[in-house]
Amino acid sequence: MSDTHSIDCIGIVGVGLIGGSVARAARAAGMCRAIIGWDASEAACLRAVELGVIDRAAADLAALARDCDVIVLATPLGVMEDLMRQLVGAIRPDAILTDVGSAKRSVIEAARRVFGDLPVGFVPAHPIAGTERSGVEASFASLFQRRCVILTPLSTTAPWATAKTRALWEAMGAEVVEMDAAHHDEVLAATSHLPHVLAYALVDTLAQMNEHSEIFRYAAGGFRDFTRIASSDPIMWRDICLANGEAVLSVLERYQQELAAVAQAVQRGDGAAIEQLFRRAKNARDSHVIA
Amino acid sequence: MSDTHSIDCIGIVGVGLIGGSVARAARAAGMCRAIIGWDASEAACLRAVELGVIDRAAADLAALARDCDVIVLATPLGVMEDLMRQLVGAIRPDAILTDVGSAKRSVIEAARRVFGDLPVGFVPAHPIAGTERSGVEASFASLFQRRCVILTPLSTTAPWATAKTRALWEAMGAEVVEMDAAHHDEVLAATSHLPHVLAYALVDTLAQMNEHSEIFRYAAGGFRDFTRIASSDPIMWRDICLANGEAVLSVLERYQQELAAVAQAVQRGDGAAIEQLFRRAKNARDSHVIA
Repeated sequence: MSDTHSIDCIGIVGVGLIGGSVARAARAAGMCRAIIGWDASEAACLRAVELGVIDRAAADLAALARDCDVIVLATPLGVMEDLMRQLVGAIRPDAILTDVGSAKRSVIEAARRVFGDLPVGFVPAHPIAGTERSGVEASFASLFQRRCVILTPLSTTAPWATAKTRALWEAMGAEVVEMDAAHHDEVLAATSHLPHVLAYALVDTLAQMNEHSEIFRYAAGGFRDFTRIASSDPIMWRDICLANGEAVLSVLERYQQELAAVAQAVQRGDGAAIEQLFRRAKNARDSHVIA
Repeated sequence: MSDTHSIDCIGIVGVGLIGGSVARAARAAGMCRAIIGWDASEAACLRAVELGVIDRAAADLAALARDCDVIVLATPLGVMEDLMRQLVGAIRPDAILTDVGSAKRSVIEAARRVFGDLPVGFVPAHPIAGTERSGVEASFASLFQRRCVILTPLSTTAPWATAKTRALWEAMGAEVVEMDAAHHDEVLAATSHLPHVLAYALVDTLAQMNEHSEIFRYAAGGFRDFTRIASSDPIMWRDICLANGEAVLSVLERYQQELAAVAQAVQRGDGAAIEQLFRRAKNARDSHVIA
């Protein structure tokens, strides 16, 4: 990172898969002097220190804020507002306050309720990276390499804050883009939030069938890939569904209409309609999604 | 393979991903003297000879049947009945006639229409193996290693035929189980056919949205895994949906009900209901599906 973007101390709030990976990546890039952490679970925080992921645990969020020039909120969305409240008055005027939440409008609304006038260093962010695993033990330094990070800066955000946050993610190997928070939420509802809902719903549907043990026994590689995201953290994804409910419901409704059309085509034995839909999907995936 | 199960010549009808892989696996296991093939696409057949996957192409299906003591139908389900018709009268009395179709009742019904009295060597089979790729170029000898192959022998099937078919798949590294065809079709509708329908429908839903290029641009690893099966052969999967329509519609209806329940929970902001469903799904997947 260039000198104008130099960081002294990063504070990670929520030392899980993402927060832990930010800490590891920041350390690997040598981008700051110290990394401190806080987690609702004291055990998780101690483990993060033991693993060398963070240098030390902060006594509380106000203490973390006083010591840090970059604060990264890396918790489930549902607790962010409460945690922001504990930062009020303690954030340094030159500090970056950023987050990694998968929905952006809700984080911004929460910040407005908490801060009133938003800090000029507030830069909402979303690294499109993760695995189905959870916790600091699952974190790794290369998680953001060549992954996209979306920043949704506001009219109140200072240009230096956006630039510094961009530099931080680029130093971790990510490709940074900026967009409007509402647009972010719609795009992510389609490509990430809806697929998680669909995968959870499928596994749960099968799990409730009488012969579920046998059903899962004959599941092959396709099923394993298709349902991998159903092993993701239920709290995190509950919060995303609540935080981005409007956009999720909108794309879910489109999907339900499409499923109904497929069901009708199967019902009437309409091979041409089924084939057309499957072929359109295959062509779209083969041309747009990197294998 | 033991002597009682010795094979002279295997005939592969449909030299694609599965048929080609059967040929390669049979050759790798040294289980027969010769492998001949037939494909609706002459080019595919020639390519299979060029690649050494089959020894030679049969002039037609009757010629193939006359030369083979094991005939493997490895085509999309929709053409099997027509192909069986071309085998009538040419199948040797001691020959195995088997298939690799993903739905079993429809193959058996087709065979009944074609043969009247079913050949005693008719052993319906389904290797639960595959990739999203298609064609002989994508075939490989280890595709069936440690994969499950389900046989659905009938009351008319001779025990020697079932035993020989079992030995054939075991020699290719597969684990063989037997079950009733109707039960097979229900289990596979849940774990394989429905997931394919859901993946195709998701990609197609997104592809029809105005901003689809941008949507796909921000798709990450979870989306890639979730939609991998939507790159599968549309013809093959159209045929499966038609052949196993009843079982697919039954489990699809359960799924639609579950999705409607999720949508209602999101609508009313019911975090407890969403979390319960997601947690139940995660627990089921983590305990039943091998990572």
